[in-house]
Amino acid sequence: MPQVSQRGKEMPASPIRRLVPLANEALAKGIKIYRLNIGQPDVPTPPEALEALKHIDRNVLEYSPSEGLLSLRQKLREYYHRFNIKVDVDDIIVTTGGSEAVLFAFMACLDPGDEIIVPEPAYANYMAFAISAGAKIVTIPSSIENGFELPPLEEFEKLITPRTKGILICNPNNPTGYLYTMKEMLQIRDLVLKHNLFLFSDEVYREFCYTGAPYISAFHLPGIEENVVLIDSVSKRYNECGIRIGALITKHKELKRNVMKFCQARLSPPLLGQLVAEASIDTPQDYMLATYNEYVERRKFLIDQLNKIPGCYTPIPMGAFYTVVRLPIDDADKFCQWCLSDFSYEGQTIFMAPASGFYTTPGMGHDEVRMAYVLNKEELGKAMEILRHALDAYPGSTLRY
Amino acid sequence: MPQVSQRGKEMPASPIRRLVPLANEALAKGIKIYRLNIGQPDVPTPPEALEALKHIDRNVLEYSPSEGLLSLRQKLREYYHRFNIKVDVDDIIVTTGGSEAVLFAFMACLDPGDEIIVPEPAYANYMAFAISAGAKIVTIPSSIENGFELPPLEEFEKLITPRTKGILICNPNNPTGYLYTMKEMLQIRDLVLKHNLFLFSDEVYREFCYTGAPYISAFHLPGIEENVVLIDSVSKRYNECGIRIGALITKHKELKRNVMKFCQARLSPPLLGQLVAEASIDTPQDYMLATYNEYVERRKFLIDQLNKIPGCYTPIPMGAFYTVVRLPIDDADKFCQWCLSDFSYEGQTIFMAPASGFYTTPGMGHDEVRMAYVLNKEELGKAMEILRHALDAYPGSTLRY
Repeated sequence: MPQVSQRGKEMPASPIRRLVPLANEALAKGIKIYRLNIGQPDVPTPPEALEALKHIDRNVLEYSPSEGLLSLRQKLREYYHRFNIKVDVDDIIVTTGGSEAVLFAFMACLDPGDEIIVPEPAYANYMAFAISAGAKIVTIPSSIENGFELPPLEEFEKLITPRTKGILICNPNNPTGYLYTMKEMLQIRDLVLKHNLFLFSDEVYREFCYTGAPYISAFHLPGIEENVVLIDSVSKRYNECGIRIGALITKHKELKRNVMKFCQARLSPPLLGQLVAEASIDTPQDYMLATYNEYVERRKFLIDQLNKIPGCYTPIPMGAFYTVVRLPIDDADKFCQWCLSDFSYEGQTIFMAPASGFYTTPGMGHDEVRMAYVLNKEELGKAMEILRHALDAYPGSTLRY
Repeated sequence: MPQVSQRGKEMPASPIRRLVPLANEALAKGIKIYRLNIGQPDVPTPPEALEALKHIDRNVLEYSPSEGLLSLRQKLREYYHRFNIKVDVDDIIVTTGGSEAVLFAFMACLDPGDEIIVPEPAYANYMAFAISAGAKIVTIPSSIENGFELPPLEEFEKLITPRTKGILICNPNNPTGYLYTMKEMLQIRDLVLKHNLFLFSDEVYREFCYTGAPYISAFHLPGIEENVVLIDSVSKRYNECGIRIGALITKHKELKRNVMKFCQARLSPPLLGQLVAEASIDTPQDYMLATYNEYVERRKFLIDQLNKIPGCYTPIPMGAFYTVVRLPIDDADKFCQWCLSDFSYEGQTIFMAPASGFYTTPGMGHDEVRMAYVLNKEELGKAMEILRHALDAYPGSTLRY
């Protein structure tokens, strides 16, 4: 039997994925599970999008252009202009989800052995795409004590080598919910400029900022317009994760040409998803606002509840719909597993994401979990009640001495 | 400005893509273009698929499983069983088009520096995916004189090195339309077995075989069930290229796990396309047969016409909907370009794919073009009339002395 690639073997299996079989066993036993583990919101897709889907009137579901439908790219430009992100239609390349945008950004910017610096904890799949591209992610720890703020510039400087080609930020952040301040964004800009780096900016949670201030995009930073590679997706903002429509946006002409070669190789992004995404951009503000308000409420509720549980701590996330929580436990991997395999309270349990999957530094985040507030308040309340009971019963609790 | 990757720079720009701006200029001048250049059939998508699209009744367009919807995988299993391809649901991983199946196959099987042997002319994007994976495609020429039959085994043996990890075939073949015989398939099997290789078998044109005999899949070859990596797509057979649904099929357990890591990183294949693909598999035989008969007629018509033009030669393709044609010209790149930029006949011209893009050996295919018979007979007739006039008028004709 021929041998598989080392590359694939090296890709870390996500700790969340490892828990899925346990969750399925729990379900088979009739246990109800509150899923705080993934960013699959329960909010319905906008009616405008669902209507557009029902009215697709084509006889041939043919290839779309490799860069995406012009009409979608025009709508996206309008959308970005509303956020004062001044990009042209030509700067916008439609991708198969934000995932493909990250992969193509890495493929088109990085050669094997090249390095990018990413503050951790970080979205675990960046690692997978870096391994795909043969590139190396160098992580720089941020800490729960400091609310996951940007690590000091000196720490970045220490990690820069001749192979460093870029910095990646996710803003608002998955998994921490952290939202970078203008001061921090300008620090990142200075670093990017000084070392002539790419700034990969994953802004898929742009609509979910809870400070009241306008969103700060990497494209707002003066002087690095050609360094920025913006990663976007309609998945989260319109609750249509399944249509797989994202975008890679760059003003770097040669990079555009490079990215387009990868786009042409895979022929085209999904046609049906593009038609739905295009209609979604017309979603009235009242839907967007209602969704936003719902998350504001959920966030307040969840954070309040969590910080009342003895030994629990979470900073107040200013964006996205996740928060990282420190728990009074020996090991979050074990605890999350135990909640699914050995515990239930009134026939119910919770599924959380161990934070270890978001760190590459061994040991970091060992007592932390990520929770997504993608359930309604009533369910979140129930989940918190279960968490209290789980912490009481868990043999590896660190509070019980 | 930061530098883009060498990897992307090395990716060849397809000669077809380079001609697109010229085609657009011709269109702007009011010239009608007969497009023989790409495999975008004019045949409508099956009504069952379009109906299913109109009746998607979901409130949240959520992520589907990374391996694809179970219901689609079950339908695909039934479909493969009709072709005596005995695979289980667990062997079938749904991908974003056949393109992603090729990319993930390479990523999961090959490490940087690994080699695969591919008979040329070959589908140009294999090269792009190999470059993405850092792998090397080693081509073995087949020739128009021999009707593009499989090169002798000794020629393959000469190219095998310690880095050779697999052989790739496209059967029926794009661009040649060649269909491998049982004798050739068994030769490939022996080679694969002897050197413990992967056999990447791209079978997306399975439904288009014109010999009357049952299709021979790589999975029919005894003794190499775990070596075969089958690439499939619903694009061509149901005329739904835009929905981006394909599949990677393997019985190699460790490879499945490896591929799944790449699938999980990109979260899920397109939900809407999967729902349409699932309905497409129920397309009644009369649609499939009508489509098939249409291609049989077009093929006969086109091949007859071509071989009547002085200096033209094309073998009779036994599968797919392409043929490679030798023309009495100095340089096919120049000729295809000239047809778009300098020539028209009664306000009309033709767009053909220069074969140079399908070869890696320099000079090979310099007087060959690929034609896709994806137009109806009347249009094909018109295109052939234009071709005759173009060959008469072309300054680089090799017949005119």
